[in-house]
Amino acid sequence: MISKRIRNMQESPIRKLVPYADQAKSREIKVYHLNIGQPDIKTPAPVLNAIKNFSQEIIAYGYSQGEPFLREVISEYFKNYNISVNPDDMIITTGGSEAILFAFSVVADIDDEIIVFEPYYTNYNGYAAMSNIRLIPVTTKAENGFALPSTEEIEKKIGKRTKAILLCSPNNPTGTIYPEKDLNRIIEIAKKHDLFIISDEVYREFIYDDIEYRSLLHFEEAKDRVIVVDSISKRYSACGARIGYLISKNRDVLSGVMKLAQARLCPPVVEQVAAAEAYRMSFSYFKEVQKEYKNRRDIMYKELKSIDGVVLELPMGAFYMVVKLPVKDSEHYARWLLEEFNHNNETVMVAPAGGFYSTEGLGNDEIRLAYVLEKQKLKKAMEILKKSLEIYPEKKI
Amino acid sequence: MISKRIRNMQESPIRKLVPYADQAKSREIKVYHLNIGQPDIKTPAPVLNAIKNFSQEIIAYGYSQGEPFLREVISEYFKNYNISVNPDDMIITTGGSEAILFAFSVVADIDDEIIVFEPYYTNYNGYAAMSNIRLIPVTTKAENGFALPSTEEIEKKIGKRTKAILLCSPNNPTGTIYPEKDLNRIIEIAKKHDLFIISDEVYREFIYDDIEYRSLLHFEEAKDRVIVVDSISKRYSACGARIGYLISKNRDVLSGVMKLAQARLCPPVVEQVAAAEAYRMSFSYFKEVQKEYKNRRDIMYKELKSIDGVVLELPMGAFYMVVKLPVKDSEHYARWLLEEFNHNNETVMVAPAGGFYSTEGLGNDEIRLAYVLEKQKLKKAMEILKKSLEIYPEKKI
Repeated sequence: MISKRIRNMQESPIRKLVPYADQAKSREIKVYHLNIGQPDIKTPAPVLNAIKNFSQEIIAYGYSQGEPFLREVISEYFKNYNISVNPDDMIITTGGSEAILFAFSVVADIDDEIIVFEPYYTNYNGYAAMSNIRLIPVTTKAENGFALPSTEEIEKKIGKRTKAILLCSPNNPTGTIYPEKDLNRIIEIAKKHDLFIISDEVYREFIYDDIEYRSLLHFEEAKDRVIVVDSISKRYSACGARIGYLISKNRDVLSGVMKLAQARLCPPVVEQVAAAEAYRMSFSYFKEVQKEYKNRRDIMYKELKSIDGVVLELPMGAFYMVVKLPVKDSEHYARWLLEEFNHNNETVMVAPAGGFYSTEGLGNDEIRLAYVLEKQKLKKAMEILKKSLEIYPEKKI
Repeated sequence: MISKRIRNMQESPIRKLVPYADQAKSREIKVYHLNIGQPDIKTPAPVLNAIKNFSQEIIAYGYSQGEPFLREVISEYFKNYNISVNPDDMIITTGGSEAILFAFSVVADIDDEIIVFEPYYTNYNGYAAMSNIRLIPVTTKAENGFALPSTEEIEKKIGKRTKAILLCSPNNPTGTIYPEKDLNRIIEIAKKHDLFIISDEVYREFIYDDIEYRSLLHFEEAKDRVIVVDSISKRYSACGARIGYLISKNRDVLSGVMKLAQARLCPPVVEQVAAAEAYRMSFSYFKEVQKEYKNRRDIMYKELKSIDGVVLELPMGAFYMVVKLPVKDSEHYARWLLEEFNHNNETVMVAPAGGFYSTEGLGNDEIRLAYVLEKQKLKKAMEILKKSLEIYPEKKI
């Protein structure tokens, strides 16, 4: 018999509709994927060229901490944000995934707790299961754009076993960006209760309005408590390269994470060479990308707001939004879209938001949409979504 | 304060002598590395060419289970051993490391136990710490070539919390290959106590004498209990590629591991493309490699046996041996080699074997040597090692 912890582990709620999508495709229905965060933007040429020019004769073990040339250019990149990160303040990881897993393990012992704002990136659950810690949800709401709740609401969930607060801004799945005053509030709470702050900043560049971005690394007074997890996956459209990193100014955290890093030897070497070329690109690279995503966001937002009964505030970042729909059960709706509905032999795939909440019953009238399709396709997809809601039988009254 | 589990985690005993080696090098002493398992053999050209020819325009997320074309060719490779492994019997992992971590998590809950034969690959400790399980050592001895102990000795260590037996053959660090009758014995024990068998077979091709290789996958009667962990790192001299895999015929094990695999999204994509080319090479590739390593082993063995007081049986596989030396403390000896000794401005770096045992006090007169240098260098290194033992002051009497 396999272990209890694995038996009890949730299956990926994003991936579980895949068989229905496959069936739709086998009926020759075209499926627009609004369900996953796989960008359609090409991986930048310097990254692909670095792979083509890979010149080592032996793909030997690299440094457990990550290749020095990569840590060096990442350190340079942070200067664009006026953030001082030394190459030795970071450990390269196999994707942001491993950075999160390492962060959980280093701040928390078995059954210790980490506060997280729901809806949240569903894979956090997987990393929590793998590191045997508990995620304690504090709920945010569509009605106010998934803003952080009051300090009182947050402190209610903090107990003896609480070790950290996990933040993600710009947020997956909501697209929300937390303003500076809220980050200050989180830091105050962390200080008061002596907690770490794990800040997932993989969508740092995906900001579409005129707001100044604040990383948790901007807050000098929190530098001993902050652990930033980051990744090239979305930033440089290289999800399959599996290059991420963890940053901390706290020496105990870093030397602890180094033990974990040494145990798994090193991150993939070829992709580290490629990732370095991404960070060597001009910062202006992001302008074009931002313009493209902003356009997409605006299209999706406008179309959604024109639907009766939709609850949504304009999300400012990342490339997702969580939308409250006039449906009774978004999981049923998502399946229905794939199994029963089509508009001129086309349909859309969406992610029911229930899986992004850990409080039972929440998110059941919400979906997460990713705007990772180019404009024309996105318009088409939104038109189909609208049509589907006109005839979907299980609507809320 | 960081977590207890990380504070208590051992640092890599192989890597902790690195600063002394660096100091020796800065004094212009040439250091021959016999301490690490980084092969000097070039990564095969088809693998390097596959990287140069990588043609995807978006390095997108791959399959959590691993790319189908890679699982397909690995399945083909096993036919060389008359082993039937379906592409769906395996999950590609980020190095053999991740396969071990997944195997530990899927067979054992927190504080459950896994039997392991010491001396053993020291990184198992890291994976045990990460998955919060306990490794229970059963000691093997230099005097009889680190053969598996009696069934009685093994059963003494099996208790209520024991979930698996972990085997590595050909063995790192000892080079021992377990004969079929011993594998049968392990299977009998596993059946009797209802245990899984985790079989680390990454050195499968590194066999130098006329013995027939037996994988745990050869034993039909054990197929529900066997989990094989494997890797391209040593097989194709591509340690930095981080491509491994886990094989099981047990559907519960596989679907459990799939949950873990989905949580970390996918293994690195570029290296999967490269790895597939390795497995497409003719099986005759290994002949040359084996010949080279057999030569090296013979050189090292002969030189060691000519030293007074050395205990060593001829190891039949992998590219390591654990040698009992006439020294009081092999850690002191290893440091002394780097800090105080040189022979014509050259010295050797060895791995003290204490770190490969978890029973306190064992291995303190043993070292692990890796024969990963080409013949001329290896001869030189062995000459230096011999000289050093002639004058080393802290010898056993």
